[in-house]
Amino acid sequence: MRAAVMRRGALVVDSLADPEPGPGEVLVRTLACGICGSDLHALRHADKLVDAAREAGVPFTMDPARDVVMGHEFCAEIVDFGAETQRVLRPGTRVVSMPLAVGADGVHGVGYSNDYPGGYGELMRLVEMFLLPVPNGLPTEHAALTEPMAVGAHAVAKARLVPGDAPLVVGCGPVGLAVIAALRLRDAEPIVAADFSPARRALAEGMGAHVVVDPARERAVDAWQAVAGARPAVVFECVGVPGLLHEIMRDAPREARIVVAGVCMEDDRIRPMLGINKELSMQFVLGYTPEEFAATLADIAEGRLPVAPLVTGRVGVAGVATAFETLARPEAQAKILVEPWR
Amino acid sequence: MRAAVMRRGALVVDSLADPEPGPGEVLVRTLACGICGSDLHALRHADKLVDAAREAGVPFTMDPARDVVMGHEFCAEIVDFGAETQRVLRPGTRVVSMPLAVGADGVHGVGYSNDYPGGYGELMRLVEMFLLPVPNGLPTEHAALTEPMAVGAHAVAKARLVPGDAPLVVGCGPVGLAVIAALRLRDAEPIVAADFSPARRALAEGMGAHVVVDPARERAVDAWQAVAGARPAVVFECVGVPGLLHEIMRDAPREARIVVAGVCMEDDRIRPMLGINKELSMQFVLGYTPEEFAATLADIAEGRLPVAPLVTGRVGVAGVATAFETLARPEAQAKILVEPWR
Repeated sequence: MRAAVMRRGALVVDSLADPEPGPGEVLVRTLACGICGSDLHALRHADKLVDAAREAGVPFTMDPARDVVMGHEFCAEIVDFGAETQRVLRPGTRVVSMPLAVGADGVHGVGYSNDYPGGYGELMRLVEMFLLPVPNGLPTEHAALTEPMAVGAHAVAKARLVPGDAPLVVGCGPVGLAVIAALRLRDAEPIVAADFSPARRALAEGMGAHVVVDPARERAVDAWQAVAGARPAVVFECVGVPGLLHEIMRDAPREARIVVAGVCMEDDRIRPMLGINKELSMQFVLGYTPEEFAATLADIAEGRLPVAPLVTGRVGVAGVATAFETLARPEAQAKILVEPWR
Repeated sequence: MRAAVMRRGALVVDSLADPEPGPGEVLVRTLACGICGSDLHALRHADKLVDAAREAGVPFTMDPARDVVMGHEFCAEIVDFGAETQRVLRPGTRVVSMPLAVGADGVHGVGYSNDYPGGYGELMRLVEMFLLPVPNGLPTEHAALTEPMAVGAHAVAKARLVPGDAPLVVGCGPVGLAVIAALRLRDAEPIVAADFSPARRALAEGMGAHVVVDPARERAVDAWQAVAGARPAVVFECVGVPGLLHEIMRDAPREARIVVAGVCMEDDRIRPMLGINKELSMQFVLGYTPEEFAATLADIAEGRLPVAPLVTGRVGVAGVATAFETLARPEAQAKILVEPWR
């Protein structure tokens, strides 16, 4: 199959052997696969990603010295079945799936594995048990957004909102936008969202933010306070760069709950006294539950999550490397989909 | 009055003008006042303490360039009344109080203020409204432990324990011991507590820890896991030195809730990916509510909090400077009480 391959820190187009579905697995053809910010990180810092997972005891197997086909936000169609499969869904059925597999040697992340290529290639092997059929009439490219939107749903679930809580979303990249949509779905109000990029602020409004802020002109927390007053603050950190957590702790109102959804792969410096004096809390979040993933697909299919504006570009495998460069400049794009069949 | 005075970063014994109670205030004679770890910090880093409070927007007024009489863990007896007082309690009544006052220029911490001297001096001015009479028969030195024990009650309250949660207390100084006692009061089980000092581990057992660990011999979390298995972990950080938060994040099991009760006045370095990969949460805590303070006094009076073993030394004002040096070595002492009348 043709694929955009991560090889020694670069993305190259190559022909690889087709993946072979193992027991309980299904062979699928990739229809569309979103490019995730974590993939941009991983291309530069694959070793760090693996070390961090190992240090945290996450059973996660990837050798960055060997080829990896990334891509974990996919919609695909069933091609063939491995042994010991139920085959309830027919070949040709469009499916989405949590990007997880359990091989003989442990848990694999589809798209972060040497053995389970992701959606930047034409074919994947997926666990049959995890497949969710895409409802008729739901565009493939909207279904492909299930994974990133589920990240937002999970972050908001972990925030344990109660009536009266007033959210502030810091950063309106794909994670922040998914958080905004999930907040809107729960009727949180007012939703205040901050980003330096005008395009992203416009997307934030499209996803349901009531107030958007340019932090270059006004402190996000001041804009938040103007509409939220003394209500309990729930701050979603959706950027993931060193130093931001400190800024949020410094600016947050007393007893703010900070949900850390941004993926910061560097060490970071905080000032504990800020947390202590204001009795802040911090909840780090990752991924989603199977229930949240399935509910997100249903929310997209029923039109409860306005995902259409998120897709701002489409490329074939030959365009992946350039798309990575484009995405490093936040102004230009939100979600670029890889369509390996192009 | 005679007092141990913080003056230009040193503790000196001096005679100061007696404090004069303002409207709504009461003049009291200090009977006993515990030395708090924060006072040790403050003596060295008073500027930092003030800066940190200001940065966090805490309305807290102290000029370290002027004299400060520290001491905020006190039991005292009523001597005289200022204007506009209710005078329900008679002179001679023993009282405890949250160490807070509201002056014309804002909120003061009694013992961290130029105008509200604390319990390392013979006399204090306190807010009448905050006074709680000490029940008959309760020894003065036990009543003086209300403040530090309330810190433990508050930390445990903020942990929002649910049945099945298994606590691990890291550090068995006064804060850790108060946390252990508060956990025991709520019938948390098993309570695992870690400290390098054998004397402190013995105190931890006295306060109700079921298992004590020497981190020099065994990782605290391994000892915890041996008795708690897969139960939800609630880790109380009760030390407050840079680097410890990282160690706790590194060793904590998945989804652990970390309650930060140690007061770390330095900047600190964390690795967000550890929090993200394990979905950790962190709750910073400080102080207590008026309700928690009053309940703690009642719990001590009724014998529900075993405070007697905590008092390991008594000094007069002349002994405060030496006591500070002694307390810097954790092995020697738990709580030293200052008795300014000596």
